[in-house]
Amino acid sequence: MESRTDEHRPIDPGPGAAARVRVVLVGTTHPGNIGSAARAMKAMGMRDLALVAPERFPHADATALASGADDVLAGATVVDTLTEAVADCHQVVGTSARTRTHSVPVLEPDGAASRVLGGAGEGPVALVFGREHSGLTNEELDHCHAFVRIPTDPDFSSLNLAGSVQIMTWAVRRAALADVGESGAVVRQASAAERDPAATHAELEGLFEHYEKTLEAIDVLDPENPRHTMRRLRHLYLRAEPTASEVRLLRGILTHTLRGR
Amino acid sequence: MESRTDEHRPIDPGPGAAARVRVVLVGTTHPGNIGSAARAMKAMGMRDLALVAPERFPHADATALASGADDVLAGATVVDTLTEAVADCHQVVGTSARTRTHSVPVLEPDGAASRVLGGAGEGPVALVFGREHSGLTNEELDHCHAFVRIPTDPDFSSLNLAGSVQIMTWAVRRAALADVGESGAVVRQASAAERDPAATHAELEGLFEHYEKTLEAIDVLDPENPRHTMRRLRHLYLRAEPTASEVRLLRGILTHTLRGR
Repeated sequence: MESRTDEHRPIDPGPGAAARVRVVLVGTTHPGNIGSAARAMKAMGMRDLALVAPERFPHADATALASGADDVLAGATVVDTLTEAVADCHQVVGTSARTRTHSVPVLEPDGAASRVLGGAGEGPVALVFGREHSGLTNEELDHCHAFVRIPTDPDFSSLNLAGSVQIMTWAVRRAALADVGESGAVVRQASAAERDPAATHAELEGLFEHYEKTLEAIDVLDPENPRHTMRRLRHLYLRAEPTASEVRLLRGILTHTLRGR
Repeated sequence: MESRTDEHRPIDPGPGAAARVRVVLVGTTHPGNIGSAARAMKAMGMRDLALVAPERFPHADATALASGADDVLAGATVVDTLTEAVADCHQVVGTSARTRTHSVPVLEPDGAASRVLGGAGEGPVALVFGREHSGLTNEELDHCHAFVRIPTDPDFSSLNLAGSVQIMTWAVRRAALADVGESGAVVRQASAAERDPAATHAELEGLFEHYEKTLEAIDVLDPENPRHTMRRLRHLYLRAEPTASEVRLLRGILTHTLRGR
């Protein structure tokens, strides 16, 4: 591990500190899970993978499931013990489904992600995932500063390793984007198109007047309560927040409706 | 699909409305992904799985990867088209990595999860996942009230289907737990009217067919591109999430428009 910082420096740190969070897989049985983890990591802007005594690695299944995250696999550090994998880390968070009493905090995924990301500003931090069937040993658990528990349904708490890694890498990405204020940019409140501005109040009023005239002509309005239908249409269209061009489309339909009457 | 509510009623609703959120997998190539999805769903308290034209199902790989979520697989509905899979849904949220301009909202996972959970208080809602390599077709995308985009690293946005399902089912679980935790009951978004249920997908499709017939009759559709106008109207109305009675009102107007021609 002494040459980690030289040969394994994370490339392209991307948004925030996600690239400085190490994923440690302990005693992985199925090489496909290592590939899936690499793919999940890379998609979430993470690069730093350490493998503790994997049963089979490198392996064609790992490469196949990495599906383009070959660089993460190629850069992975392979060591014999968890101690070596996290030697340079000042924060180690382990995943554990155990109910054993811990004297360190047990966090849910978002809390754990925020914690390791916060720590990543100061130096390497690690998220540790245990064996597919038996998880982490008690001795390994004792290396952790905190645990993360994914709050699955108590009647079926079965998550596979790749699924747990996917959830935690997403939690890290999510927290990293929130830190740099990018999460708001991700959400695009759809106006129909970037170049198609929302209709103005006046344009909407023009639409409603056009509607009312048309509905009168085709005899839709309830003569005893003509306003009622118009109010309902108003609410429907206001909720949709039409663009200016959508208002023109609707008025085009109204014009054709009236034509020839 | 007419007997869905009898043969496919979600069991054990668990915390909040998660069990009422349907996962729809469209044209899945690898049966293992169906199994992984079932496992991810069950771990997150979800039960309602619909498969649209899966390439191979049932299949040993699906059963193996479901890893105990056999009941979710056994209860899965298999249909030929997305339309059938979401006919009774009043809210349909599709996953899409496309950059194509949409005129319906594009949400990040938590926003999408909150939205479908809020809607699940009123009736079935769906999260739709496309084919492994090609996603959803444009026609399928046009059935969605909103999209969810997982904000992966722009340089490597490769998430596999099982990973996307894992992230979204976790987002639903997370939102469901937050809802229960905050208020002791599922938080329900205000619907247009308390006694007026949202229109189902089938009711909306009926509206769109009625519209198309009417616009043809009054000569509004561009003969060179008749689908374009319909797509724009579709997006406008999907965004508004009309209630069942609003759909009846709009169809009443269309009926009167056609009358006497």
